[in-house]
Amino acid sequence: MKRNAMKSPVIIDLKFDQEQVAAALKGAFADREVINLLHPGSRKRDLSGIDYAVVWRPGADLFSRAKDLKVVFSGGAGVDHVLTLPGLPDVPLVRFVDDTLTTRMSEWVVLQCLLHLRQHQAYEAQRQKRVWRELVQPEAKELTVGIMGFGVLGQDAAAKLKTLGFNVIGWSRSRKQVDGFETFDASGLNAFLAKTDILVGLLPLTPDTKGIFNTGLFTRLSRKGPLGAPVFINAGRGGSQVEADIVASINDGTLRGASLDVFETEPLPLESPLWSMDKVVITPHAAAASDVAALFRHVAGQIERLESGKPLEHLVDRSAGY
Amino acid sequence: MKRNAMKSPVIIDLKFDQEQVAAALKGAFADREVINLLHPGSRKRDLSGIDYAVVWRPGADLFSRAKDLKVVFSGGAGVDHVLTLPGLPDVPLVRFVDDTLTTRMSEWVVLQCLLHLRQHQAYEAQRQKRVWRELVQPEAKELTVGIMGFGVLGQDAAAKLKTLGFNVIGWSRSRKQVDGFETFDASGLNAFLAKTDILVGLLPLTPDTKGIFNTGLFTRLSRKGPLGAPVFINAGRGGSQVEADIVASINDGTLRGASLDVFETEPLPLESPLWSMDKVVITPHAAAASDVAALFRHVAGQIERLESGKPLEHLVDRSAGY
Ligand SMILES: NC(=O)c1ccc[n+]([C@@H]2O[C@H](COP(=O)([O-])OP(=O)(O)OC[C@H]3O[C@@H](n4cnc5c(N)ncnc54)[C@H](OP(=O)(O)O)[C@@H]3O)[C@@H](O)[C@H]2O)c1
Ligand SMILES: NC(=O)c1ccc[n+]([C@@H]2O[C@H](COP(=O)([O-])OP(=O)(O)OC[C@H]3O[C@@H](n4cnc5c(N)ncnc54)[C@H](OP(=O)(O)O)[C@@H]3O)[C@@H](O)[C@H]2O)c1
Repeated sequence: MKRNAMKSPVIIDLKFDQEQVAAALKGAFADREVINLLHPGSRKRDLSGIDYAVVWRPGADLFSRAKDLKVVFSGGAGVDHVLTLPGLPDVPLVRFVDDTLTTRMSEWVVLQCLLHLRQHQAYEAQRQKRVWRELVQPEAKELTVGIMGFGVLGQDAAAKLKTLGFNVIGWSRSRKQVDGFETFDASGLNAFLAKTDILVGLLPLTPDTKGIFNTGLFTRLSRKGPLGAPVFINAGRGGSQVEADIVASINDGTLRGASLDVFETEPLPLESPLWSMDKVVITPHAAAASDVAALFRHVAGQIERLESGKPLEHLVDRSAGY
Repeated sequence: MKRNAMKSPVIIDLKFDQEQVAAALKGAFADREVINLLHPGSRKRDLSGIDYAVVWRPGADLFSRAKDLKVVFSGGAGVDHVLTLPGLPDVPLVRFVDDTLTTRMSEWVVLQCLLHLRQHQAYEAQRQKRVWRELVQPEAKELTVGIMGFGVLGQDAAAKLKTLGFNVIGWSRSRKQVDGFETFDASGLNAFLAKTDILVGLLPLTPDTKGIFNTGLFTRLSRKGPLGAPVFINAGRGGSQVEADIVASINDGTLRGASLDVFETEPLPLESPLWSMDKVVITPHAAAASDVAALFRHVAGQIERLESGKPLEHLVDRSAGY
């Protein structure tokens, strides 16, 4: 396709792996100019009059230089980093939603639930000691996975966990009607927690969800399940968890174990006690990497919708913070 | 229900955990007498004229004492141990098939596939060294899981792996038509192996499958997949694998890793090099424990079918050996 002089260029300001960005840009946005701000040649480029920017930890002067933006696209599914950017213009903000991201997140969530259900860590310890011993093993259906954040990611993980046999319930701000799942709204939190054996966090970070995963919440989880104590799994945002409480809750048996992909500070500081806890699985914010090629397809698709008069999808509600 | 004097008793000779057997017998076979041969009181009992026996590693004299059996029920899904019992009468042999066993096996298979896909062992090693580093991560759909043994267990695991996004293919003695899966029969083994990135063994042990998982087979697996080398997972029977070849294939890179629930000799001998291999997940023949209560429900159901004139299900084909 020929680049169309009438079509607004798209600004790319992504602090991602630049080789991946360059590879993904080949063939992307075929009908309009791409201005990659991480190219030295773009440093002095006049950005006025440009409609679109795709951003992840953008330069501090981006919004003063690109003062005519009509839409800002987040390079990630979460927008907590974007909403706090100084000078963010009051225009539609679109977050990244894509099948490849959703699918990868569900792989991670299902893996973590099965790891805890099937007592993988205990068997691994037995292997190292050359111990052959079968452990008492409940079946998935005897456990309830409670998902806090029953949105795009939460509902996909729920469907897959259910296929594996788990009982699954969901909690969200507004009550959801999803066939096959018992759901709870914000006011139903206590009832939701009392039924939950494995808690999965897939919440955005907002003022309401900051620090929500703390001892007070962990003690309200079910202790009646066949594993004896609840498990905490989080792949939403680290700001929603209180890590000192996770450590203390595992040490005193309030929690049986945890799987964490996100942390209050990333990279997780060397001095964090979480690193040395065998009952904790740690992945480096890698549960569902943004596939850059998929990101550009998503952005191109939304721009095409807009330019053909259709409403944008995956708009962020600024008052709700996600 | 009152025990019916006209109904044949059922003999139980199961070398399982006797507490579990006793608990499961409560309420089972309510309409007929149960003779548990592991009770000392049954030692001298006349077993002639009795129609049914449920067996797992039965006493050497069982079949000479119970000489009028009409059906033998295997306490497990696999019947390799039963078929070699001296004196096994030439009557219908029914194996154990049950949802709880199938579901548990699929939990185990999906867990193992995800563990290898998501590089759990590498992340666990990083945790222990306090290393925060994201690894290049393919998506499930970029890998093909090839299941050898596409029967009750293989097809259930296949459906669940597919839900997670894996591409799944199946191999069995007779060609299967299963919607959504490419399948191969015995003669298509090479084509099947050439497509397989993660090999899952769910075969019965028969003369044809003895030692089938050996270096010659591992070298025919795909090396084009995004993980660089194939993975071997086995939960069928240990007699189908050559453990010396698994060890050598992992050491020389022919295989990237393995997950084994079954072994040539069980318990796995202390001197096996498999115990000390970090790339090998070991579980003690625990992928899908026989739930004894479910076993008795299944046996009672089959007896009821027979006595009401319906054909028995899950009959073993003795010439095929499974
Ligand atoms: N670790 C990673 O690699 C990774 C990758 C991608 C995304 N994430 C994180 O995952 C989060 C969720 O993504 P998503 O695509 O599923 O978002 P989404 O579709 O917007 O879903 C968010 C869910 O959280 C609920 N929620 C928000 N605030 C709440 C509150 N105060 N109380 C109760 N429920 C609340 C929402 O309720 P309503 O349904 O009522 O709106 C919704 O169900 C993202 O925000 C991001 O932070 C992490
Ligand atoms: N680890 C554990 O805890 C555990 C628990 C339960 C069972 N098992 C094992 O799992 C095995 C499979 O169980 P299942 O219920 O799935 O049995 P199944 O329904 O009989 O399936 C067996 C499959 O293997 C195929 N097969 C047999 N011999 C073959 C050969 N020579 N070449 C190619 N394919 C062959 C069969 O082909 P066809 O379809 O053409 O007949 C069938 O697809 C059992 O025999 C048992 O040994 C292990």
